[in-house]
Amino acid sequence: MEKRALYLRIRDYLAADIAAGKWAENEKLPSERQLSEQFNTTRVTARQALTQLEAEGLIFRSNRRGWFVTPPRINYDPSRDMGFVRYVEDQGFSARTQTLEKKLIELPDHIADEVGLDRGTPVYEILRRRYINDRPCLIEKIFLNPKHCPGVLQHSLDRSLWSLLKAEYDLVPVERHLEIYPQTLEQPIAEALDANTGTSGLYIRRICRDQNGDFLELDEEFWLHNALKVVVSVMPD
Amino acid sequence: MEKRALYLRIRDYLAADIAAGKWAENEKLPSERQLSEQFNTTRVTARQALTQLEAEGLIFRSNRRGWFVTPPRINYDPSRDMGFVRYVEDQGFSARTQTLEKKLIELPDHIADEVGLDRGTPVYEILRRRYINDRPCLIEKIFLNPKHCPGVLQHSLDRSLWSLLKAEYDLVPVERHLEIYPQTLEQPIAEALDANTGTSGLYIRRICRDQNGDFLELDEEFWLHNALKVVVSVMPD
Repeated sequence: MEKRALYLRIRDYLAADIAAGKWAENEKLPSERQLSEQFNTTRVTARQALTQLEAEGLIFRSNRRGWFVTPPRINYDPSRDMGFVRYVEDQGFSARTQTLEKKLIELPDHIADEVGLDRGTPVYEILRRRYINDRPCLIEKIFLNPKHCPGVLQHSLDRSLWSLLKAEYDLVPVERHLEIYPQTLEQPIAEALDANTGTSGLYIRRICRDQNGDFLELDEEFWLHNALKVVVSVMPD
Repeated sequence: MEKRALYLRIRDYLAADIAAGKWAENEKLPSERQLSEQFNTTRVTARQALTQLEAEGLIFRSNRRGWFVTPPRINYDPSRDMGFVRYVEDQGFSARTQTLEKKLIELPDHIADEVGLDRGTPVYEILRRRYINDRPCLIEKIFLNPKHCPGVLQHSLDRSLWSLLKAEYDLVPVERHLEIYPQTLEQPIAEALDANTGTSGLYIRRICRDQNGDFLELDEEFWLHNALKVVVSVMPD
């Protein structure tokens, strides 16, 4: 049987150590020089192993400070109707939300066409940053139909929006359409997440309607690529 | 209301043209120089707009040849039990599969632990490349339990594996656990997809068991980041 390339064997060794808890999350790994000595190889090969682990999301590089262990990914099951705060806390992490901007805008044309509203319809736009265990993990851009929740911007939005909509407006989402795909983080979003422009991310887009099928919310989430894992369990008929 | 940055307005303009079919899929866009003249701006700004569209997956750069329109993403619904060939063809595209390697190996330790097999258990490993409309879109690595399908490597694997397993071994998957997350394409995979190392991708991993709950297959898919979109429709209770 074939022998695995050296950089991949170093990768496996480090991945096993990380899985076994030898380094805790956010802990610094040995330097490239130390690793190349330990494995009796070049720094190029050590760096190849580290880059591979970074591509898999297991470690991350912090400019000038070295390589660190990524905290575990959050599991996100899109087939379950559960808000961010709940699924994060259910997994033993803390969740925090920070509102960056809230304002009334004209709904962008391509979104208006898609959700079946007139072009130029006023909507609330809310920009929030969400943290898992104090690490900024995603930026969320929300378009809300003001017809259904007039004055919602006067409330604090640093909390679950669904709880607020339920408590104040008796609104419950009854249909959801989700799209999920990789997307490179553009500059303002990368900056807001302490990441480099061009870092890969995961884009999640959700359209919610109310009990009567009216457009209620379009939510766009821009996640750090290593912060979550989409998990689906399927039981065929 | 705020004015959108120039590069984003150029982005919107080009995105609208692409959506309207002004340029067909795989068609070449005007050069950066032409765009900068058309919008009376610098090449830096034109390039910013193009880079933004690339990040969204709408266009791609081909070395030295310029910028081209990406074919539409395939929709993939992980909650439906449907093979690649079927969901690609259902959407009006053609699907093609090419077997790159097939062999008997010892199951890697971390996978053995995870699926509950003894370390070192022999398994079939199959490496395939899959095309959508003749574009290589994903590399697939499959581990198959030989206990359930002895001799399967003697068949052609350039087809739906599920149909083969059903026809030859009467095997039907009855449980699936999926994980999906962004992952940078590592060198051999990027090369096999005509992409640059470091291009972002989407990783999809599926564990299937047979009717009796025995481990049947672990399938790892490495997709080009702009080739598919995970789509889920949820109807709450």
